[in-house]
Amino acid sequence: MIFNQYKEIRERSVSLCADLDPEDYVIQAAEHVSPAKWHLAHTTWFFETFILKKFKENYQEYHADFSFLFNSYYNAVGERTARNQRGLMTRPTVKEILAYRSFVDKQMYALLQESTVSEMIDTVVLGLNHEQQHQELMLTDLKYNLSFNPLRPSVMEINEYPGQNPSEWLDIAEGIYEIGFEGDGFSFDNEATKHKVYLQEYSIASQLVTNGEYLEFINHGGYADPQYWHSDGWTWVEAEGIKCPDYWEQKEGSWFYYTLDGMKEIDLDAPVAHVSFYEAAAYAEWMNLRLPTEAEWETAAEKFDWGNRWEWTNSAYLPYPGFAKAPGAIGEYNGKFMVNQMVLRGSSIATSPGHSRATYRNFFHPHYRWQFTGIRLCKK
Amino acid sequence: MIFNQYKEIRERSVSLCADLDPEDYVIQAAEHVSPAKWHLAHTTWFFETFILKKFKENYQEYHADFSFLFNSYYNAVGERTARNQRGLMTRPTVKEILAYRSFVDKQMYALLQESTVSEMIDTVVLGLNHEQQHQELMLTDLKYNLSFNPLRPSVMEINEYPGQNPSEWLDIAEGIYEIGFEGDGFSFDNEATKHKVYLQEYSIASQLVTNGEYLEFINHGGYADPQYWHSDGWTWVEAEGIKCPDYWEQKEGSWFYYTLDGMKEIDLDAPVAHVSFYEAAAYAEWMNLRLPTEAEWETAAEKFDWGNRWEWTNSAYLPYPGFAKAPGAIGEYNGKFMVNQMVLRGSSIATSPGHSRATYRNFFHPHYRWQFTGIRLCKK
Amino acid sequence: MIFNQYKEIRERSVSLCADLDPEDYVIQAAEHVSPAKWHLAHTTWFFETFILKKFKENYQEYHADFSFLFNSYYNAVGERTARNQRGLMTRPTVKEILAYRSFVDKQMYALLQESTVSEMIDTVVLGLNHEQQHQELMLTDLKYNLSFNPLRPSVMEINEYPGQNPSEWLDIAEGIYEIGFEGDGFSFDNEATKHKVYLQEYSIASQLVTNGEYLEFINHGGYADPQYWHSDGWTWVEAEGIKCPDYWEQKEGSWFYYTLDGMKEIDLDAPVAHVSFYEAAAYAEWMNLRLPTEAEWETAAEKFDWGNRWEWTNSAYLPYPGFAKAPGAIGEYNGKFMVNQMVLRGSSIATSPGHSRATYRNFFHPHYRWQFTGIRLCKK
Amino acid sequence: MIFNQYKEIRERSVSLCADLDPEDYVIQAAEHVSPAKWHLAHTTWFFETFILKKFKENYQEYHADFSFLFNSYYNAVGERTARNQRGLMTRPTVKEILAYRSFVDKQMYALLQESTVSEMIDTVVLGLNHEQQHQELMLTDLKYNLSFNPLRPSVMEINEYPGQNPSEWLDIAEGIYEIGFEGDGFSFDNEATKHKVYLQEYSIASQLVTNGEYLEFINHGGYADPQYWHSDGWTWVEAEGIKCPDYWEQKEGSWFYYTLDGMKEIDLDAPVAHVSFYEAAAYAEWMNLRLPTEAEWETAAEKFDWGNRWEWTNSAYLPYPGFAKAPGAIGEYNGKFMVNQMVLRGSSIATSPGHSRATYRNFFHPHYRWQFTGIRLCKK
Repeated sequence: MIFNQYKEIRERSVSLCADLDPEDYVIQAAEHVSPAKWHLAHTTWFFETFILKKFKENYQEYHADFSFLFNSYYNAVGERTARNQRGLMTRPTVKEILAYRSFVDKQMYALLQESTVSEMIDTVVLGLNHEQQHQELMLTDLKYNLSFNPLRPSVMEINEYPGQNPSEWLDIAEGIYEIGFEGDGFSFDNEATKHKVYLQEYSIASQLVTNGEYLEFINHGGYADPQYWHSDGWTWVEAEGIKCPDYWEQKEGSWFYYTLDGMKEIDLDAPVAHVSFYEAAAYAEWMNLRLPTEAEWETAAEKFDWGNRWEWTNSAYLPYPGFAKAPGAIGEYNGKFMVNQMVLRGSSIATSPGHSRATYRNFFHPHYRWQFTGIRLCKK
Repeated sequence: MIFNQYKEIRERSVSLCADLDPEDYVIQAAEHVSPAKWHLAHTTWFFETFILKKFKENYQEYHADFSFLFNSYYNAVGERTARNQRGLMTRPTVKEILAYRSFVDKQMYALLQESTVSEMIDTVVLGLNHEQQHQELMLTDLKYNLSFNPLRPSVMEINEYPGQNPSEWLDIAEGIYEIGFEGDGFSFDNEATKHKVYLQEYSIASQLVTNGEYLEFINHGGYADPQYWHSDGWTWVEAEGIKCPDYWEQKEGSWFYYTLDGMKEIDLDAPVAHVSFYEAAAYAEWMNLRLPTEAEWETAAEKFDWGNRWEWTNSAYLPYPGFAKAPGAIGEYNGKFMVNQMVLRGSSIATSPGHSRATYRNFFHPHYRWQFTGIRLCKK
Repeated sequence: MIFNQYKEIRERSVSLCADLDPEDYVIQAAEHVSPAKWHLAHTTWFFETFILKKFKENYQEYHADFSFLFNSYYNAVGERTARNQRGLMTRPTVKEILAYRSFVDKQMYALLQESTVSEMIDTVVLGLNHEQQHQELMLTDLKYNLSFNPLRPSVMEINEYPGQNPSEWLDIAEGIYEIGFEGDGFSFDNEATKHKVYLQEYSIASQLVTNGEYLEFINHGGYADPQYWHSDGWTWVEAEGIKCPDYWEQKEGSWFYYTLDGMKEIDLDAPVAHVSFYEAAAYAEWMNLRLPTEAEWETAAEKFDWGNRWEWTNSAYLPYPGFAKAPGAIGEYNGKFMVNQMVLRGSSIATSPGHSRATYRNFFHPHYRWQFTGIRLCKK
Repeated sequence: MIFNQYKEIRERSVSLCADLDPEDYVIQAAEHVSPAKWHLAHTTWFFETFILKKFKENYQEYHADFSFLFNSYYNAVGERTARNQRGLMTRPTVKEILAYRSFVDKQMYALLQESTVSEMIDTVVLGLNHEQQHQELMLTDLKYNLSFNPLRPSVMEINEYPGQNPSEWLDIAEGIYEIGFEGDGFSFDNEATKHKVYLQEYSIASQLVTNGEYLEFINHGGYADPQYWHSDGWTWVEAEGIKCPDYWEQKEGSWFYYTLDGMKEIDLDAPVAHVSFYEAAAYAEWMNLRLPTEAEWETAAEKFDWGNRWEWTNSAYLPYPGFAKAPGAIGEYNGKFMVNQMVLRGSSIATSPGHSRATYRNFFHPHYRWQFTGIRLCKK
């Protein structure tokens, strides 16, 4: 089964890029995004470094320089290319990176058929979840990178703005609840362990805030009035000249947004996307409501639909009680990011199939908005 | 009683500066600190704006431009001097600002003797607590400002590094606890209301980490090894070239620190000060321990001594359940800062007398360290 | 005679500050300006370092740290305070600096009465010319520093905008001319030596461009049209949002400027001041005229009035043929600035009496405009 | 003849890229360099905009957006892509840009065979000289862009470091000389017109400074001693951490440099390249010599070999007497850059055949060194 999973997920990464030209794989429009080429190579480097070099006898690394080129942020694995220079690596070319993928996959196929060491299997499963995270980044980074092109190119058929039902308030009673992951399947270290929390009574919306609702905030002058914003949020709005969600453009009185399928007129009934935490919080403040905490979100999650947007919570990304980092490079995965970031729950239209669950804790700094981020309201 | 409190607290602000020369009041070495002159004027502006203009019949403002000059961050009260230009206001001079204080105090004395409107009294009490916060800032900002002088001047007699007893572990059992302010005295809106939290079992140190203990972290190479640091913390260490707590200097093999009483050799047994959250967390990580959450700190606070250092917790500064901002300018006091900052508990040797309690929630961005910040460890 | 000159020039520095409060001496609003305190101390340090320490037997330096505090840019004399931190030195106070001046002057008076070593006298003369340069900077830096105060304070009686006669064209024939200093009095190394240049025929204006003439350029939209500007100038205009000369402010349709005597309505007939080279060149371009070269300026100088504004020329600051730097610290005075700066000729209303001559070469980077800079036009 | 010239020069641009992969054409490692793709498109845009749109009847532009995409700095021609975002245009792809070139060339071939309007021919000749300038930039920008790749790829066979003979001093007598362009062939507006200058006696080296000679400056500690540097140059050295010419790397005690043919050990006898004006001037200062002015260079040019390096002169880039900008967009070519830049004379191993003459005035800001820049010494 792991063999098939490996094959399916690895092939999906390549097929996501099916309609790109070689030039499209190269660029990096900001430090926080990466070129498609780099994602394809880095996810391969993961398997070469943490599986083949450790578990394959006499493995010869594919290329002496690739570890330097394609390490991301694992300090424990040694030197790496400066993160803001990933877009300057024209070589290895796309073709050469696909050859690297084929080489590593071939070795992995062989290994997966001959070995069932559980430490190896666990790391392969982690590597596949890691690759699925990069698949989502491939889409969102690509969108970000291409959006700087004045031609606003369409590069794939995709509906980024699916519809949804009208929203209702769902009521949750005060008391002790349990959150966190427990069970047999895969989960990240930051979701463990299941533990008790005490919640006050609250109500949570069954649906996300729509483009139409968010547009009222814009038209009301929400971006020009500091009273709705966190102090840091207002500084961000003023410094960056923020006036609407990312990718929105106004032309002759109408609003459009850029999607991977080109420019589209905004759909008022679809859930708003590409808002920062600051915008989500300001919108809630303007509505005299608030964002849920992650415990509130998880406790109520089985009562509402989710999966189209990563939903900003009002919880900072912090360790669960008893959290401990794994030893070695793998331990750098989550713990070291537990400051200055806000938790997002759910998943998005760009999340890979099979890569979501109610206990999943995503996290970003509060000003980022190149992910498909959205807003769910809460009250009391 | 409010009359005496007012007099005592207002006079303390001036007496803190007793040994300064006029030049010392002027400078601002970084955007996050303010000149002593500005503190003296801004705290006065608070009473003029929120008390005299509202509650004193036919009050004539002292000077038409002072509201612009001495507003801090209250967007609702109108325009104000750019925060990073407070150090450029040579005029009004110190003498003129002291005259402004005298004028306002005289009016306030009269008002406090004739009126007992509770809304006014409440705002006066808030203004006095506000002034006490600025008293602590006057000391810490002054230290920061003067520390850039190559002469490292001594400007007051003060012992910044008092001793403490050996530390022990205090054990707290799992269960439901209550935190938050309840009662009659003054508290800030961010401390309310008292509410239930669920805590897992933990142990907390009865004393703070000392200079000697922290020095072992330095000598062990803690500032050169990313494994102990948050990712953002490591970026900060590298970008700023951080190698020790703020104000520490090494000369011919010995460590000294700058204090408001000039340079002193470090006292190994005194609690370390002037560390950022990143340093506090890295130290705890190196010890295989952790920082307490604010709920853990408050729950155990009656069992240990505190009051010499603001103690970094591992809690982000977020609203308590049911938190609501006050209406108007006063509402800008706390709520808009509830993102990107970490909670500190306790109080410090620079905190004004009568201005501390176990429910008090102080907060700073995690890289700041010009306050008298320290480290208390926690485990399990 | 040198004795009297010394006394007169040294006393003038102190008397320029007669109406300042101690706070006014402290601040530094940008790296390119210095506090009044610093000028008073640095010019004293010059005499202590280059005269007393060298020529006075058994001279004991006044204070061990002052050399570090008050060196400006003489790399050969050792370490110095970072230029952008001169405004953070509240101590030594103004009183202490005046005491330092008195001490050094007393020693100098004694030395000047007992010794006539020509090397010493030459350096004293250089030091006095140096002090006169700093006297002009004291005024222009003070104006810059105080201009950030929303109160726009008046600190001295001064007429910055004297009148002038109508302008005429003065014609100069093609041929060989001589420029550069020759003779007995003092001159800087950059003015020597007198040498031949070949000039094409040209005409030069007998008067400076006035505020009224410059206002037409503003009203015509000169600051919004790149065709008049150098490429670097246009970048500067856009990056800094430049819309008028420095210190100009428009209120209810009228133009005012800040002067050391407070805000004044602009005088249309007075010569424009506080323009950068970029603005001077753009104005000339708009007029279909040009700025003179420094050789053209000097050749014609005896035919026109000058002395109220430093006049931008279209000459870059470069060495005259045969220029050689003096050995040691004094050699850092001029040569190392001979790149990226434009030459200004003449002198200004802020120049010290006796400190101007037709061969004098002043120089600044082309974007600076805190000096009393003006525009003289040229054609053909 | 213009037909053949057009064909030859246009084809050379494409053939320079013969060995590149599509990815190599995309990137832009700094604002001052451009992607190879952009050069190919921009030079084509020049002919479409200034020839086809003006002189070809009923010409239909190839693509509505290309003018926006491929304008460089001609403010008079309208909006354009931000210069620092040229590396983000993955589309149009290389293939599409080559198709654009073919389309424009086909139209141009037709036009050149049917029309001989002299205004058109003059602009075509300017366009070809413009394209030759971009050919040199294609090589130097490519080198810069690819140098950031840790693999240091070789992309073409080229000898960047040809040998030279030993150097001698050539003596020139004092007197009136003539410099500037006069004659029938093409020249840029900045070379005109021929005019008299007066020169003092001087001597100039017959050869360039070699790598070996420059290495002595490095080994002597030239990069660590401010006395050899201009003040702005020293600031640059310290801010950028400059320690050697660009592209030099030291490995195990030996020096190598990156070339378009990969890493090579330095050739001690070849002329040094990739030095800034600051480095050239500091080297000359260290030798107690100086750089020639451009008039000195041009006057002596027929007596020495030149053509392998652009040679820094000590002349700022300023207008010749009587210089006037051409009207319209073409007038933006030279005049607006006449501030803050230094003149370079000669040509380099990357200069296109037929694109050099002794009156040619190249110019760059003094810190740039990605061109093949070198040093010729001068004295007295």
